[in-house]
Amino acid sequence: MPVKNLTEGPLLSFNRFKKQDFISILMNIPKWVFFFTLIGATVGSASALFLATLNWATDFRESHLWMIAFLPLAGLAIGFSYHYWGKDVVKGNNLLIEELQSPKQVIPFVMAPLIFAGTIITHLFGGSAGREGTAVQIGGAFADQLTKIFKLQAADRKIILICGISAGFASVFGTPLAGAVFGLEVFVLGSLLYSAIFPALITAIIADYACKAWGVGHTHYSIALVPQMSVINLILSLGAGIIFGLAARSFSVLNHTIAGLFGKIKYPPIRPLIGGILLVIIIYGLGNSRFIGLGIPVILESFTQQEPYDAFAIKLFLTALTLGCGFKGGEVTPLFFIGATLGSFLSFYIPLPVGLLAGMGFVAVFSGAANTPLACILMGIELFGIESSVYIALVCITAYLFSGDAGIYKSQAIGSFRKFRIKKHQFLR
Amino acid sequence: MPVKNLTEGPLLSFNRFKKQDFISILMNIPKWVFFFTLIGATVGSASALFLATLNWATDFRESHLWMIAFLPLAGLAIGFSYHYWGKDVVKGNNLLIEELQSPKQVIPFVMAPLIFAGTIITHLFGGSAGREGTAVQIGGAFADQLTKIFKLQAADRKIILICGISAGFASVFGTPLAGAVFGLEVFVLGSLLYSAIFPALITAIIADYACKAWGVGHTHYSIALVPQMSVINLILSLGAGIIFGLAARSFSVLNHTIAGLFGKIKYPPIRPLIGGILLVIIIYGLGNSRFIGLGIPVILESFTQQEPYDAFAIKLFLTALTLGCGFKGGEVTPLFFIGATLGSFLSFYIPLPVGLLAGMGFVAVFSGAANTPLACILMGIELFGIESSVYIALVCITAYLFSGDAGIYKSQAIGSFRKFRIKKHQFLR
Repeated sequence: MPVKNLTEGPLLSFNRFKKQDFISILMNIPKWVFFFTLIGATVGSASALFLATLNWATDFRESHLWMIAFLPLAGLAIGFSYHYWGKDVVKGNNLLIEELQSPKQVIPFVMAPLIFAGTIITHLFGGSAGREGTAVQIGGAFADQLTKIFKLQAADRKIILICGISAGFASVFGTPLAGAVFGLEVFVLGSLLYSAIFPALITAIIADYACKAWGVGHTHYSIALVPQMSVINLILSLGAGIIFGLAARSFSVLNHTIAGLFGKIKYPPIRPLIGGILLVIIIYGLGNSRFIGLGIPVILESFTQQEPYDAFAIKLFLTALTLGCGFKGGEVTPLFFIGATLGSFLSFYIPLPVGLLAGMGFVAVFSGAANTPLACILMGIELFGIESSVYIALVCITAYLFSGDAGIYKSQAIGSFRKFRIKKHQFLR
Repeated sequence: MPVKNLTEGPLLSFNRFKKQDFISILMNIPKWVFFFTLIGATVGSASALFLATLNWATDFRESHLWMIAFLPLAGLAIGFSYHYWGKDVVKGNNLLIEELQSPKQVIPFVMAPLIFAGTIITHLFGGSAGREGTAVQIGGAFADQLTKIFKLQAADRKIILICGISAGFASVFGTPLAGAVFGLEVFVLGSLLYSAIFPALITAIIADYACKAWGVGHTHYSIALVPQMSVINLILSLGAGIIFGLAARSFSVLNHTIAGLFGKIKYPPIRPLIGGILLVIIIYGLGNSRFIGLGIPVILESFTQQEPYDAFAIKLFLTALTLGCGFKGGEVTPLFFIGATLGSFLSFYIPLPVGLLAGMGFVAVFSGAANTPLACILMGIELFGIESSVYIALVCITAYLFSGDAGIYKSQAIGSFRKFRIKKHQFLR
């Protein structure tokens, strides 16, 4: 996807303070305070409602496991709803990324209720999926309605969209810095949009605050023991980072492959029906509910005890199947699961503490799959504290290097941009 | 300073993993492991020696305050040594930045001993200066000798130089993540060199490890109390950030103005002699040694008690005079001093804890002056922990926005690049 030049807009004034436009900045401040507050408060509140509903759905499913038998029908319902009301928004996160690269039309508001309901249904009936995609899409769809209401220019609209995405990510995980940087880093591989750094940060902070103000908490992870960095530990971390990168690569490839296979079924609503039948068979075969839904209990467990070798692989396959056939939700929490259980398992071979390896995998596999190393480093620091920061940074960047071109977001600008970079190798662009 | 296109080189393989060059990556790994280790170990060790010598010089001066009377003669000695041996390296950090933007010649090794001796002499006789410039220049000069020895290609050389700079910064402050990001962020305003992110991080970690292995410690700062983020505190932080940004702006402008005035003295060795005489008069007028040297005791004090309104202003002027007339050292520790004392003073007007305001100013004024907001956010988190991270991020980015074009590094690519950005406003570049 080639990167288009973008027209200029008043938002540029946020880019950097210049003497001659000091007045225009001051005039623009009320406008932007209004937008930041509106997006932050609504998206943060939507995330709170989403997280609360998701908790309810997860609890209900766990106490009524027979619900899983109806997963194929739930898939059919999702398939029909997207087929009839959501053809324009079925691309999800990729649609947001594409609109930022080459704006075509305002994101339809229907994206928000569809992804909300689709994700809740997916989790209620036992699909394996995440939640960040949902929060990001709710954020983007909410924010872009302002474009219509206030007739915003192209440049303003881009900032607004980035704010919505940052707000959704920040509030759903309770990590404002990672949320802000995610919104700036996700659109173009190997680049960070400094010009939107201020709006993204402010909106992310407000959204996180709004979500917490509703009393919705976030899971607390902790790494019990962090050894001093040493030459040996540096080498071990690099090795772990390569493995996490290859796991991220496998997830992305499998995800796209399964989506491609289901794409051969011409009538879309049938895809999640068939996928759902396969999922039910596999879940009944597994005989437990460890690998469905978000999988938070297993993620927490992996920080304190070693996971078996197949935990990460099962989750990887179940998630690729769930999302590839048309169920809804994000990829990130399953990536946390895959990374944490893989790291936890690796503690059998790699002489680092199990909690540290789980934490390293938690963010590193996500870093490799989403191609957002800085957001993942910040997320690791926000979730686990500063003590493990050097280990976290090492694996996030190594995994990013070794995860290959194909990330989970197909529309991320890599193709022509990458070619350009490869030809020119402009460090200083 | 316009940004040149850079030619391609084998290092590109580090940029991202690609299937077809997996073998070439594996073949290149030993080479790069060798370079990372060599640069990290030597630069980290040099930083350890530098920090130990600097501690000795500071202690010696504080117990022999009559030394300050000889500051003008010390200035003359520095002036002569740069005039006869160091004409090519007198630009210091700016030379490194220029070489990265448009390579001309290998950095002469003499840069390292000259800046080392010049900084120690400056501190020994009571100039007001920092240390990061010294560490960065030692790092850059050491690293660039590998270019000569191993006849490196242009692209490799750039990575090597960035590694040297990251290593110097990381080891002198004990902040590996901030050091790595500083090396990637400092060359072009509003851009981050993702393609060197892996080399910079590894070398920074090794350098920090090497410096600590010599038993050299770093000052420990701590913020005693961090209140919950709230709407009021968000607004207060934005206000503080604007003030820190304007302080950074004043420092840069005053620095360049004083350097311009001294530039009118045609025979360079005389400049620090005259500057030294002025400094001695001012320091004797002040009647204490609080504002000379690094000023670590005052920085530490500002975290726990309110500083008077003039502390930051005196340090700002003394440092601009010291560096502007030709003494040697960095700008960053004085910027920490200016920010911390200004923040501490602001606690009289801004109802936030004094320690938090001092910590916010500490990194925010540096962020505005060096135009490196991400490195400063990471530095704040590495020094003060994760609790204050949202406050730190807010002020670092606000100060960056309000500090204007003129940073402390004149050669930072802003001119044509900025104009380009202003015309095109390419978020997605």
